[in-house]
Amino acid sequence: MVATEPTVYRVIGTRPVRPDGVDKVTGRAEYGADVAPAGVLFGRVKRSPHAHARIRRIDTSRALALDGVKAVVTHADFPTVEDAVADIGETTSNFRWVLDNVLASTKALYYGHAVAAVCATDLHIAEDALELIEVEYEVLPPALNVHDAMADGAPLLHEQLRTAEMLSRFVPGPDRSEHPSNVASHLRLERGNVDEGFAEADVIVEGEFETAMTHQGYIEPQNGTAFWNRDDDLTVWVSTQGPFSVREQLSKILRLPLSKVRVVPTEIGGGFGGKLPVYMEPVAAIMSRMTGRPVKMIMSRTEVFTSTGPTSATYVRAKIGAKRDGTLVAAEAYLAYEAGAYPGSPAGAGAMCMFGSYDIPHQAVDAYDVVTNKPKVQAYRAPGSPQATFATESLLDELAERLAMDGMELRLKNVAREGTRRTDGAPFGAIGAEEVMLAARDSPHYRSELAGEHTGRGVSMGFWFNAGLESSAYASTNGDGTVSLVVGSVDIGGQRAALAMQFAEAMGLPYEAIKPQVVDTDSIGFTGVTGGSRTTFATGWAVYEAAMDLRSRLEERAARIWSVDRDAVDYGADGIVRGPDGKQLTFAALCARLASTGGMLQGHADVSPTTVGPAFGCHVVDVAVDPETGKVEILRYTAVQDVGRAIHPAYVEGQIQGGVAQGIGMALNEGYVYDADGRLVNASFLDYRMPTALDLPNLECVLVEVPNPGHPYGVRGVGEVPIVPPLAAVANAIHDAIGVRVRRLPASPTELLRESLGE
Amino acid sequence: MVATEPTVYRVIGTRPVRPDGVDKVTGRAEYGADVAPAGVLFGRVKRSPHAHARIRRIDTSRALALDGVKAVVTHADFPTVEDAVADIGETTSNFRWVLDNVLASTKALYYGHAVAAVCATDLHIAEDALELIEVEYEVLPPALNVHDAMADGAPLLHEQLRTAEMLSRFVPGPDRSEHPSNVASHLRLERGNVDEGFAEADVIVEGEFETAMTHQGYIEPQNGTAFWNRDDDLTVWVSTQGPFSVREQLSKILRLPLSKVRVVPTEIGGGFGGKLPVYMEPVAAIMSRMTGRPVKMIMSRTEVFTSTGPTSATYVRAKIGAKRDGTLVAAEAYLAYEAGAYPGSPAGAGAMCMFGSYDIPHQAVDAYDVVTNKPKVQAYRAPGSPQATFATESLLDELAERLAMDGMELRLKNVAREGTRRTDGAPFGAIGAEEVMLAARDSPHYRSELAGEHTGRGVSMGFWFNAGLESSAYASTNGDGTVSLVVGSVDIGGQRAALAMQFAEAMGLPYEAIKPQVVDTDSIGFTGVTGGSRTTFATGWAVYEAAMDLRSRLEERAARIWSVDRDAVDYGADGIVRGPDGKQLTFAALCARLASTGGMLQGHADVSPTTVGPAFGCHVVDVAVDPETGKVEILRYTAVQDVGRAIHPAYVEGQIQGGVAQGIGMALNEGYVYDADGRLVNASFLDYRMPTALDLPNLECVLVEVPNPGHPYGVRGVGEVPIVPPLAAVANAIHDAIGVRVRRLPASPTELLRESLGE
Repeated sequence: MVATEPTVYRVIGTRPVRPDGVDKVTGRAEYGADVAPAGVLFGRVKRSPHAHARIRRIDTSRALALDGVKAVVTHADFPTVEDAVADIGETTSNFRWVLDNVLASTKALYYGHAVAAVCATDLHIAEDALELIEVEYEVLPPALNVHDAMADGAPLLHEQLRTAEMLSRFVPGPDRSEHPSNVASHLRLERGNVDEGFAEADVIVEGEFETAMTHQGYIEPQNGTAFWNRDDDLTVWVSTQGPFSVREQLSKILRLPLSKVRVVPTEIGGGFGGKLPVYMEPVAAIMSRMTGRPVKMIMSRTEVFTSTGPTSATYVRAKIGAKRDGTLVAAEAYLAYEAGAYPGSPAGAGAMCMFGSYDIPHQAVDAYDVVTNKPKVQAYRAPGSPQATFATESLLDELAERLAMDGMELRLKNVAREGTRRTDGAPFGAIGAEEVMLAARDSPHYRSELAGEHTGRGVSMGFWFNAGLESSAYASTNGDGTVSLVVGSVDIGGQRAALAMQFAEAMGLPYEAIKPQVVDTDSIGFTGVTGGSRTTFATGWAVYEAAMDLRSRLEERAARIWSVDRDAVDYGADGIVRGPDGKQLTFAALCARLASTGGMLQGHADVSPTTVGPAFGCHVVDVAVDPETGKVEILRYTAVQDVGRAIHPAYVEGQIQGGVAQGIGMALNEGYVYDADGRLVNASFLDYRMPTALDLPNLECVLVEVPNPGHPYGVRGVGEVPIVPPLAAVANAIHDAIGVRVRRLPASPTELLRESLGE
Repeated sequence: MVATEPTVYRVIGTRPVRPDGVDKVTGRAEYGADVAPAGVLFGRVKRSPHAHARIRRIDTSRALALDGVKAVVTHADFPTVEDAVADIGETTSNFRWVLDNVLASTKALYYGHAVAAVCATDLHIAEDALELIEVEYEVLPPALNVHDAMADGAPLLHEQLRTAEMLSRFVPGPDRSEHPSNVASHLRLERGNVDEGFAEADVIVEGEFETAMTHQGYIEPQNGTAFWNRDDDLTVWVSTQGPFSVREQLSKILRLPLSKVRVVPTEIGGGFGGKLPVYMEPVAAIMSRMTGRPVKMIMSRTEVFTSTGPTSATYVRAKIGAKRDGTLVAAEAYLAYEAGAYPGSPAGAGAMCMFGSYDIPHQAVDAYDVVTNKPKVQAYRAPGSPQATFATESLLDELAERLAMDGMELRLKNVAREGTRRTDGAPFGAIGAEEVMLAARDSPHYRSELAGEHTGRGVSMGFWFNAGLESSAYASTNGDGTVSLVVGSVDIGGQRAALAMQFAEAMGLPYEAIKPQVVDTDSIGFTGVTGGSRTTFATGWAVYEAAMDLRSRLEERAARIWSVDRDAVDYGADGIVRGPDGKQLTFAALCARLASTGGMLQGHADVSPTTVGPAFGCHVVDVAVDPETGKVEILRYTAVQDVGRAIHPAYVEGQIQGGVAQGIGMALNEGYVYDADGRLVNASFLDYRMPTALDLPNLECVLVEVPNPGHPYGVRGVGEVPIVPPLAAVANAIHDAIGVRVRRLPASPTELLRESLGE
């Protein structure tokens, strides 16, 4: 670890065992599939075999007549949902569209779009019943990529959709296009004068880049079990990154007060952004209301691929201009991101991130959100940034070549620092972009010699702004000096440990004294999603503030016990409360006296941080390309990242390694393949090829710690930025190895062979 | 309702539907028997067939060899427990004794005492395995009542037990008897000079009274399911009145930190004090540790009778002296209460309560706690008071007769008022003893004429001091103006409703906006047992304070939104926040703005009230006695009670009716019957006869409201005092009907015939 500021912590920076570890390795942890309330019914979904079709008629009578079938639902069984928009995590959604995606209303908009659902006493009966639901379609021509969708005369997905001119990433302005369009919105970010900028440039590089639609590939399929009680109390057990977000979506879609919806988050087998929206939960809820019994639904792997939210396939055109000495003067880009069937791609985030690592005086980015006849995209780890950054970092590689400069030196020369303005004009605070570049340059990997034929080295930066959002925490003392800590952030990457550690640090207690627990939406204050790299940061802050609240109450109690002035008592960082005249009590000793002096004490806090800590990574990769087959082998990979402060370094490294692996998948292997009619033809882990442990070397991590001044422990989000650099890093390494500039990902053997043959 | 102080509430005093109502009437509520974790094993307990026997040897080998049996345990499998004493609810327990009761160590001390346990893959296998556990006993003579147990040369239950002289109800003094004894302790309460008092008396009445051992008779048998994880995290699902008490007992018995024990309270089918101690929970936990699987145990009805804690059989000798005008001058009593197999009867509480309704200048009560070879007694609704009060109120009836005064007038003349000193010397605060007497005297029932042969009317007062103890609450706002309210008090008698109502009142919100939830011991601050008539009082106070905390935070936020001084903002009782210049926001409108102005808000509180509100009841009963059979029929029953403030009057009435029914059972029907060897012979609801709805008329309630000044809403505990008066009221009515003074309860037909024949 490269620490820029020496701070001594007792708990932070250690690597204790996670509280949920034993449960998970022994198979005891409760996942959604384990939920089995008495009298449960099993639900299945009937899905569209067409990419674009008008639904003329749905006849459910034969299915309903099947013995064991308890209910069949279509869109018509749902209440009318208001056209309200809410931020449900990293993306903003319109609840009417959310419901339309849950069960299609007038049109099926993608292959696998849900059109009806059934529940039965047995899963197999439910499967059989699907065959008995008759749907009459009028098949329409699909728009399967941004080019087709934006073309004149393109088939329109939504007859009423007008292009919105966005004021910012989530705020549409008053201007709308005159005619309906598949372009849901256009956002322009601008800084300086880009035309003047390019006029100053001595060298200009430009290019077109494309990336495929890729899936998060979490191990656990989506699932949800709902029980709608006769008094309209709805309980939903679900694998989700955001129980409060699920609660809000259900409340809006089902028209229930928030307090009537209780969402119980089960353990979660991965999400990466894909487990923010609802799919089957509202359907299970409605079928539970119809039947008076709990209804459980689990997706198959095929359904996960066809019908949940992958990330956008993208088309990016970019141009960068520099002075002869390597000073960047202008950058411009055009981004068209597929949203899938409903508006809401991460094009805006791509626009915000793509030039974020650098200080470029003149910039302009136009980002287009384009609906296509594919599943509605959802957040996927730093959503939007990898695709746009692929363009930036490929072009910088080319620019360095053109200027005969070392790529790392070119980047260092232009690196963003505190005060540098981002593409959207906002200035950076304390950031570690330069520190990660320097650490990458000085790393054993970058200093090593690369040997062998058809081998190459690539470098790329990556930037992600990270999220804040609200978090709550509640802590209760126990008489024996232990503490029960309650949070609402579901634990995906070791949050229980990372939160207990920050609480222990704040209280001056050993990690083992803290028992963290993730509870349902009725049992803790509002807490945003586990996503946006925000949990260790924001919920960590909440547990810190809860500790401060508790410390203050403990000081007050000690003062009362000692009959001294409250201000004369101080709770120390070592967990000892000190008063005047050498009076002192350890936390445990004070806890033992609480019951008899007025009762046990608790602390609580709610935070909504506005000072998030942006994160930067610099990756170095060595590859070998087999010229016969086009297969790319990753020889060595080093990810350097500014993590602010690594609370639990092992879990930080795990996040980085996971992000890198997914980025390499995007670079080399992964991509949705559709036939001409818009049917997904590789909807299985066999055909949709993610890198496995066998495909990759050990992924080396270098943690740089430039503490985030906007957090009590300097934490920055760490989970997302590592997926950003691999696309360009690998592409640049391939170019270094065989001289081919890959512009279209994944750089599969087929693609590489085609490129190297000049096709 | 008779209200002594007009206060206008919006929610308090209404009768809304309880939040758990639908769940309970539709069979959806989760009771302990419904808990079914994956891989669960079923445990059963082998019990002693002897009332007193030394355990020479236990051979578990044959049981262990049975196919399907996974573990067999005896006392030897438990860690050694410290001899620590703790208050676990209404009674104080020694953890070594608790464990010895859970599984006998060297001796079996009562018929049904657990000596070993087994768990197996199937309940029937576990049952079969019990037969294969061989226990070699040396049978000892039993002591089956206080007379036998206190006699010279009585068989000693505990060879080391020395009589402790108590300083107060729970605090033993330094003095101990020289020789071992079955008398665990002696408490003397004294006020004035009782000899001088009796010397002043013109009339003295005295008598000996006996009551039988009776059981709470809750519908749901004890149960518990435990899972001991490999990391020593123990989770226990249990039907209990005190999840935190179960946690403490398990922590001590199993030598685990409190934070390693999570107790999940399931719904509870009645407790009345009997569901405070642990029985099978530690056994299930140890067997889970041995097997690595969850272990579930449920008692049969027979086990509930033989092996859980009923209330003491008692022997009371009492004497009351009065002036000729009816002024009480002296009272004296000797109380010997059976503790069952281990120390801890409610004799001390009986001593504190028996003269509590009256102002008597000279008093002395000696209370003896006596171990006998019967199940260890436990709390049962106003534990100890009904039995001792039976003596007091019978003697007062006799005194009125001797003085030729109306019984009610005699009582009114001597009634305890604010400032009257209790038997233990403490002065009463604001109490409603006089108000309930007056309301009883003025009631339609008491003013009615009693007609018919062999009919009679009886009256009795009853007093219970009520408990305080700690409670916590945590409340979270939702964006739509609803609130999630979290408490740790299990809901037996409508607590969810009564707590949500107090919170709604405090916030100026409708009841429907509050969603109350009872959570496990990891998820809320320490909260004492649901018992001691404390929950609506103390947890109600906690939710009130949590509301005040939340109101203060809401004021602060509104001030920030309006950019005005925080002190200029006031949250009104109508749920509207007002600032300067006519600025105002309803709670819901403010909630809708919280997320965008710094986040949702919560409030929390922990209270440990010291100002509990004593409760008094005055009951009037008419009976008819069949002279041929001795059967007593309850013709009419009116219970007048000072409830302080009835939060939910229907539930208050339910508590009163339930207490009266149980008291009538004690008076007329119920009692443990042992054979000469100490075997319980009526361990079923068929042979142990509790009154049913068919046995009783509608029980009329008159709620008197003398607000408790020590509570924000004037609440007094209401659940216990109604069981106190029925014993003497019914006995007095029988005397009025047929002239027989019943001194031994239950006044069964057999007993009555014997008494009326002068046997």
